[in-house]
Amino acid sequence: MPNDELSTTFAALADPTRRAILARLAVGEATVNELAAPFDLSLPAVSKHLKVLQRAGLITQGRRAQWRPCRIETAPLKDVDAWVERYRHIWEESFERLDEYVGELKKREHEQEEKNHGHEG
Amino acid sequence: MPNDELSTTFAALADPTRRAILARLAVGEATVNELAAPFDLSLPAVSKHLKVLQRAGLITQGRRAQWRPCRIETAPLKDVDAWVERYRHIWEESFERLDEYVGELKKREHEQEEKNHGHEG
Repeated sequence: MPNDELSTTFAALADPTRRAILARLAVGEATVNELAAPFDLSLPAVSKHLKVLQRAGLITQGRRAQWRPCRIETAPLKDVDAWVERYRHIWEESFERLDEYVGELKKREHEQEEKNHGHEG
Repeated sequence: MPNDELSTTFAALADPTRRAILARLAVGEATVNELAAPFDLSLPAVSKHLKVLQRAGLITQGRRAQWRPCRIETAPLKDVDAWVERYRHIWEESFERLDEYVGELKKREHEQEEKNHGHEG
């Protein structure tokens, strides 16, 4: 098991329930009970997911007994953003090339039309 | 094991060797031998990583025997980008709040200086 930070973050995000928990926490703090409610999951199952998120630094949990609200922490998400940012130019470039190609097709079509009208007139 | 696309992508990215392979392929196509060279890994070990990346749709491999170049595919990376984008506002907002706070501190410091100069003059 790789244990570098980015790998731990990606592994923690590789689960739809954990991503749904993060989406809920993006709106504001919530207790374990509040987080468990929308899922058909037992409290221990939710706690297990929270531990994975906590280990990845994606959430922190308050220390007060009973009411221990969880909150989202953005530092690991920033790292994901910075990582994916390095690849953005690839699809942006290919989109630009597609855009140029479509522009070229339109130009040719327009020229063909002009030519056809020329022959008609 | 969750098998939704985004989870498969995140799981594939949760390994530094696989991310290094992607970084190499972002520069251009490469064969399995070329990909194995910079790592202290056997060809079967590299092939195993490539299979994980392939299953996640992050790379494709040419079909010609011997020379079967791998290439990066950006569709899953775009999905990661779109996913993390939804969280960007959280740290951008907290940065703005910090920025406002620093601005407020500077203003107060400036006012204090003006006041001091006023007393001197």
